[in-house]
Amino acid sequence: MRFTSRTSSDGVIEQTFTLGGIPGALWTPDRPPATRPLILLGHGGGRHKKSPDILARAHRFVTEGGFAVAAVDVPGHGDRPTDEELDRIATANQARIAAGADPAPLIAGFQALVARRTVPEWQAVLDAVQRLDRVGAGPVGYWGVSLGCGLGVPFVAAEPRVRAAVLGLGGALSSAGAAARITVPVRFLLQWDDERVPRAQGLALFDAFGAAEKTLHANPGGHGELPPGETEDSLRFFARHLG
Amino acid sequence: MRFTSRTSSDGVIEQTFTLGGIPGALWTPDRPPATRPLILLGHGGGRHKKSPDILARAHRFVTEGGFAVAAVDVPGHGDRPTDEELDRIATANQARIAAGADPAPLIAGFQALVARRTVPEWQAVLDAVQRLDRVGAGPVGYWGVSLGCGLGVPFVAAEPRVRAAVLGLGGALSSAGAAARITVPVRFLLQWDDERVPRAQGLALFDAFGAAEKTLHANPGGHGELPPGETEDSLRFFARHLG
Repeated sequence: MRFTSRTSSDGVIEQTFTLGGIPGALWTPDRPPATRPLILLGHGGGRHKKSPDILARAHRFVTEGGFAVAAVDVPGHGDRPTDEELDRIATANQARIAAGADPAPLIAGFQALVARRTVPEWQAVLDAVQRLDRVGAGPVGYWGVSLGCGLGVPFVAAEPRVRAAVLGLGGALSSAGAAARITVPVRFLLQWDDERVPRAQGLALFDAFGAAEKTLHANPGGHGELPPGETEDSLRFFARHLG
Repeated sequence: MRFTSRTSSDGVIEQTFTLGGIPGALWTPDRPPATRPLILLGHGGGRHKKSPDILARAHRFVTEGGFAVAAVDVPGHGDRPTDEELDRIATANQARIAAGADPAPLIAGFQALVARRTVPEWQAVLDAVQRLDRVGAGPVGYWGVSLGCGLGVPFVAAEPRVRAAVLGLGGALSSAGAAARITVPVRFLLQWDDERVPRAQGLALFDAFGAAEKTLHANPGGHGELPPGETEDSLRFFARHLG
């Protein structure tokens, strides 16, 4: 793990790093090193580890929850090189959608393909970040919607260090199998008028989670219109389960 | 309005009253009179104004939120006399359900009938309670699930003093028309494995609310298994909208 920058503002230290070719960012409270709960944030499709929504959420989780927060670029996103295979498939999918194909199964297939890479990558990032004296081996949470849900469900299912997860804006098509293996508490966010994930698909994914403690929060609005109150709720959810 | 008892415990004053033949209870903080937000609690079928769940919720809303809280017996419940007409219909419905009839439309029809009495009754109770110097004419919230939702939806739709409502465990069959006229913020609680309200009926009622700000909270479990965390969430919801 190689750190590439370090800045500090508003009580938050931001460090960027690379780990085996994966670019990432780590946010921690600007206080002495200590073991802290860690939240991994998964970014959305076409976004990256420092997209405005990721940055805003990371800062609130650090300043209001005292958590450490990490995010890394998904293959083909952010500071990662263009991935020719993924690029070719994405371009082909876009053409099929433009020609009238149902986007849901295409997105599902694509996310399953990417998840085969990101699950071991994120596990390696957890290993490395938890060795830092600013983070340590505390409990881990995961927060990710849209692409961050498609990749997050198989990650949370595979990774026993994750003790609570906020997921959402995803459907059962790509994720039902892995969702059934998730037994940690889950908050699932659904946008009632989601133009990308059919409502029945989202409800079916909530239904599929194997967790005894799972709550669906549905709000009106489209895929990109999650209400800000849900970030506050996620904070309380993580504080309860990782605190 | 005639007060029939007054007790005080754990910082909460409980007063029982009758108003035009309607028995009710009022809970307020054991502090000097002041104008406070008021929450009206609607009890479930077969229960009453001082059922254990109503008492517990009232105490938390008073002690943790500083609200005034009121609840009254629905016709045929609690300290009210047996209502022959309602009793006859309820008995006939029970027989039809025992014989295999779908309970949902029978329950819906019954609740619509009761609501024609409770809407004006609850409005009269609001009038009287808001004249008390321990309550005053502050903003009003409504909390009610199951029968408290079936009766609450037409009440909230009809009563402009209500500025936020927590409803749930009800279906669209009885309530969709009135739900569409509700424009104040709504929290809607749905039990994913509700054995009395079909899931699709609950989702359709959430869909029907005319409110721009509405959130569905769905949790696993049956009709009687609302998780305690939702009471805490209701408190924050009312604090935000009535505070």
